[in-house]
Amino acid sequence: MNNAPTSIDVVLSPPEIDLLPQRDLAGSVAVVYDVLRATSTMITALAHGAAGIWPVRTIEEAWALKEMRSTALLGGERHGEKIEGFDLGNSPLEYRENIRGREIISTTTNGTIALRAVEHARTVLAGALLNTGAIAAHLAAQSVCEIVIVCAGTFREAALEDMLAAGMLVSLLPGLRRSDSAEAVLALYRQEERDIPGGLRRAKNGRALLAKGRAEEVEWCAQASLYPLLARMDGEGSAT
Amino acid sequence: MNNAPTSIDVVLSPPEIDLLPQRDLAGSVAVVYDVLRATSTMITALAHGAAGIWPVRTIEEAWALKEMRSTALLGGERHGEKIEGFDLGNSPLEYRENIRGREIISTTTNGTIALRAVEHARTVLAGALLNTGAIAAHLAAQSVCEIVIVCAGTFREAALEDMLAAGMLVSLLPGLRRSDSAEAVLALYRQEERDIPGGLRRAKNGRALLAKGRAEEVEWCAQASLYPLLARMDGEGSAT
Repeated sequence: MNNAPTSIDVVLSPPEIDLLPQRDLAGSVAVVYDVLRATSTMITALAHGAAGIWPVRTIEEAWALKEMRSTALLGGERHGEKIEGFDLGNSPLEYRENIRGREIISTTTNGTIALRAVEHARTVLAGALLNTGAIAAHLAAQSVCEIVIVCAGTFREAALEDMLAAGMLVSLLPGLRRSDSAEAVLALYRQEERDIPGGLRRAKNGRALLAKGRAEEVEWCAQASLYPLLARMDGEGSAT
Repeated sequence: MNNAPTSIDVVLSPPEIDLLPQRDLAGSVAVVYDVLRATSTMITALAHGAAGIWPVRTIEEAWALKEMRSTALLGGERHGEKIEGFDLGNSPLEYRENIRGREIISTTTNGTIALRAVEHARTVLAGALLNTGAIAAHLAAQSVCEIVIVCAGTFREAALEDMLAAGMLVSLLPGLRRSDSAEAVLALYRQEERDIPGGLRRAKNGRALLAKGRAEEVEWCAQASLYPLLARMDGEGSAT
């Protein structure tokens, strides 16, 4: 157990994410949470048999990659809505049927940016409440010096649901040296753990989805540790 | 009461502070917390009769201002230690005697930078646990649209003690629309409120001060609402 991770840190918001490309992550595992909804959608798609997910930063990159991978589905959002000409939006509920064996090219506002900001880490995992138990079990056995949890946030702000999920992961990895931000999200999780769906409904993104009649999506994303799977970004940038 | 503040937001860390000069704060009150130790030192000095505090960004600016205000005391720190040639360091305990009627020119690593980043706000208050009750009482009666709490942090990281103090202020201003970050620090405060000194000792800065034998300073800064005073930055940049 000497090689188990020794410290855990949490990147709370997009302005902190901007600094990650300069941070030495060569010995680190990065776990990126964009709970409402990008990473929850990725985990849902993989749980329903998607062959892999290619997160890209721009709509143009998505179309360019589609040229090369013509059978892939195009998915994602801008301002929460499906992108014109794309096959799928950013609701996890869309990714439960007709997904098996398909590759998905995905571009979303914050989740993709956060995944790309840590692509120099030794390992990058896409995290959702849906698979946080599996992530914790995996990490507890890893020989890395550091775990960095990245809260993707919304536009330039910290998002409650991402901090809550980060806190859940911190809670499942006791005995590590926690940064101050890890302590803060752990306190948030301890407050909310008896009613995670309620926490997501209270978050700014949750309220916005409820106002659009998308309560079912919020409830879906709030299901903690539903799937025993990992989503790892490989060297080429896809998550499988 | 229609003019009472309607929303409360929390800036969690230095990378977020970097964006504040671009944010419209013309109708906002900004409250800056650097609990260990810059703002606690300011509040302690004012409580012991200091005539005013001039926060400046650099050591050079401090000496230049001293040329113009020759009776002022020079105070501050770099890497936690007193600056060569200065009269005082950054321990609040130093600011309890021989302070009455004196102006203080102060430069610290994070606190000063945070105060300067919000100098375009309608009102800027230096906040510490020491005077958070007074700040809350003052803000509850203000006709501003927004309260922005700024956690000064340490180097580039969020600091637990600043988030804890921010959470205390959020807790004392119920009924406002809270951002997700305000919800997060409130949860932290709820976890810690029964033992605030313990929370400060657990923070990274608190542990560093304990390791240097400075436990008394940590205990001092943990005294919630000891002083019924406000420290307001005026247009010229001093806090009185």
